[in-house]
Formats: sequence, structure tokens, C-alpha cells
Amino acid sequence: MLPLDNQAKVKSLKSGLYLFPVTLSDNSMELPWLGSEYREILKSSKLIFAENERTARRFISSLKLGIIIDDLRIEKLNKDTGILEVNNYAKLIKEYGHALMMSESGCPAVADPGSVLVDVCHKLGIEVHPLIGPSSILLALMGSGLSGQSFAFHGYLPVDKNECGRKIRQLEIESAREGRTQIFIETPYRNGSIWNQLIENLSPGTRLCMAVDLTGPMQEIKQSTVAKWRESAEIKWEKIPAIFLFMAS
Amino acid sequence: MLPLDNQAKVKSLKSGLYLFPVTLSDNSMELPWLGSEYREILKSSKLIFAENERTARRFISSLKLGIIIDDLRIEKLNKDTGILEVNNYAKLIKEYGHALMMSESGCPAVADPGSVLVDVCHKLGIEVHPLIGPSSILLALMGSGLSGQSFAFHGYLPVDKNECGRKIRQLEIESAREGRTQIFIETPYRNGSIWNQLIENLSPGTRLCMAVDLTGPMQEIKQSTVAKWRESAEIKWEKIPAIFLFMAS
Repeated sequence: MLPLDNQAKVKSLKSGLYLFPVTLSDNSMELPWLGSEYREILKSSKLIFAENERTARRFISSLKLGIIIDDLRIEKLNKDTGILEVNNYAKLIKEYGHALMMSESGCPAVADPGSVLVDVCHKLGIEVHPLIGPSSILLALMGSGLSGQSFAFHGYLPVDKNECGRKIRQLEIESAREGRTQIFIETPYRNGSIWNQLIENLSPGTRLCMAVDLTGPMQEIKQSTVAKWRESAEIKWEKIPAIFLFMAS
Repeated sequence: MLPLDNQAKVKSLKSGLYLFPVTLSDNSMELPWLGSEYREILKSSKLIFAENERTARRFISSLKLGIIIDDLRIEKLNKDTGILEVNNYAKLIKEYGHALMMSESGCPAVADPGSVLVDVCHKLGIEVHPLIGPSSILLALMGSGLSGQSFAFHGYLPVDKNECGRKIRQLEIESAREGRTQIFIETPYRNGSIWNQLIENLSPGTRLCMAVDLTGPMQEIKQSTVAKWRESAEIKWEKIPAIFLFMAS
């Protein structure tokens, strides 16, 4: 099953599953974090699990490493992938010696459904190798000026307006009690609506940060108290990826 | 104040504070994440805020970029740095045009006290630029196979045995309720003692992960249920950095 020309190259690599980061922004001009060692791992891999096959193909092509995309076996791994299929994927890793996992954006298995394959790897004694790369959550936290000694990522807030307001106030109480930075994301077209909810529901002294288009050409990170945000000009929200963070005083 | 030869080089860089990651492990053989773009930022910087000046000097020297360490102004920024001094640091950034911030390990302002300078930068309208680099918390989460869609980092657990046990059980209840991965660190000489506390206090079905020496030569990431950990051979804990993660079933 395993192509012969691959077996030779694989020898210097460890067996198992490499968690391979991709770019955060389609418009990232440079990939400073993707050094030659990681490029070699990519070049010697024939089996890839991708949250989005098209994104994975486009990312690999864009690197111009001479990889023939049609030679790759790319298997879809997303929220609809069943556990039987994931178990089969783990068997494939053993067959190929090693494989890569890629999410649609940034680091795999963070804020995406990839962790289920990593979990199965642990059960079957397959080694996992997380690689260093961009994470919008981590970059936003670094750039926020809010506590990085205690923080929580919550994914998405509820869509229903009343429920969302309740959740925000509850997270603010928890933030004050634990000294914790609260972090969440939103689908780009809802950025403005979630921002207004935050401004309305949080206390004036709470520090609120928005980090948009991280690593992209429109990157912007701003943090201020809710009181100051209320006084400032309304933000024109673009449909671009945003991370929101706050910390109660 | 600002050296003239610096002003020319600075022009291509954005003004403000660059959050510059360093290695996680002294024994990291390669720095795949530190590409030429980031090396150029380092080469054109004369002002550095470091959690540990010695670590910063050693890291910069190890890169062999031809930087003369004595030409750098390195200011200490740690948990004992007062807010007046931090305000002065922010003024220095304006004077120098741009500056770097480095923690003792990994990404600055995450699990270290650097966020206070970032906070002051936001207050004074100084731009902050988080750079991509290694974070043991993020790598551990990626490699754990536990949920990356909801997670919390708690820093250190209480040292007192009873208090620590109580905290672990409380975090387990929260984990089950929120579907959240709980993450924390320990000082290396207490790895064994915290591990025993986890094994004793968590429920058999909870998945528990240990990630040690990430990016270093002794890197190891293992995850299993508490029931399975109880059956397996006792771990010989080395005095090396470790991250612990668990998720209730």
C-alpha cells in the first residue's frame, strides 16, 4: 500500500501523527513560522487528514515545495466524521508510518474537531507530534494585555440575544472571581452584533479586547475598558475573523 | 538617545512592541518556527524587555546573528516590576520606535507576568505585535486528544494536599458540566506529587494527559483514562517541565 519511494524518506522521521499548522489568513504574506524542518516533514508525507481538503491542497501548493498533490492521499476529518472512520484513519497511519493532520486554519485540534483522531492515536499507542504554528487564540491572548496566567476559551456564544447577554454576564462574574481572561470567537458576519452585546452587558470597568485578522493585512488588536469603548466611535466591522477577550476588574 | 544606525533599519518595521517568543527547551535542537522575518526583527531591535535578562542574552547569542549583546538595552520585566517602572518602559518604546518583549520560555504574556506592559501599551496607543512561536500550553492541548473547543488554563494548583484534592474534584465537575479541558502546570520537582493527586482524586472515566519536555529531547505526550493510569506502571518523574490536562467523561 505504502509507496516505495516514500519508505526511504520516512526513515529519518518519527512514526505517528504530526499535527501540522496551516496559515491563519489567506493573505498572510510570509510564513515565518514554517521553517525548513517542517517543510521536510511535509515533503516526506503521503497521508494527510484535513478538515477541509481544498484548504489543505491550496496551502500545500502555495508553498511551492515540488509536492505533487495528486500523489497525496487526503482524507477528510471534520465534525461529521464518524468514530468508525476515525478508527480506520488510525490504522492508515500505522500502514503509512506517519501522517499529517491539518485544520482549516491555524493549529489542528484547537477550536476544531480534529482532537478525536489524536484521542484514538493515544488509545492505539500511536505517537503524536504537535508542531509549532499560528493560533489566533494564543496570539490574541498575548496581544490583549489581559491575564495570561489564567484564561478560558469558550468557542461561540449563544446566538439568542437574551441567552447571549446572560452568558456574557455569567462569564464576567466568573472572570472577576477567578482573575480569568475569557476568550471566544464569532462567525465573521456576526462580529458587530456580538460586539454590541459585549458593550451593552459588561461592566464599565471590565477590559475588553478585539483582535481581528491576526497575521493578515488588516490585523488590529485594541483593548480598552468598556466605559472607554462606549465613548469611542462605532467600529465598522468587516467580515473578517475576530477574537474577543475580556477580563473583569 | 536612539542610536542613529538603528533609525535607518527600523524604518521597514512597524513601531510598537513586538511580543517575541523564545525556545521552550534549552535543548531544542532546531528552531523551525524562527524564520528569517523574525530574525530580522530581532536584528533591528535595540530595546528588549526580558522576564530574565540572562535567558534573553543566552537566547539571542545562540542564534548567531551577529548581534552585539552589549549594544542592547535589556530591561527586566518580571512579577516584581512596579507599575511606575512599566509606565517608563512604555515611554522608552516610543523613544526607540519599537522594542521586543521576551519571557523566560515560549510566548511572552502567556503564563508569565508580561501582560502588564502590553496593557499599558494599549492605554497609550502603542501598537502590539504578537509573533508566532512555541507555547507549551497550546502544544500540550493539540497533542492531548482532549477537547480543543473549550478549555481553561489554571496556572498552578494549590500546594496544600487537601486543598489541591478539593480543587481537582471541583475542576472535574466543571469539566463535565462545560465539556471543558482543564490545563495546569507544576514546578518540575513537584511533578510526581501532583500526578499522584490527580490519579487519586479524579474519576476512573476521566481522560488524563501528561505532556513533558515539549520540543525538547525527552518530549513525551501520553493520554489515557484515570482507570488505565491506575493499572499502569508508576511513572518515574524527571525534574523537567510538564503540563497536565484532563477532561471528564
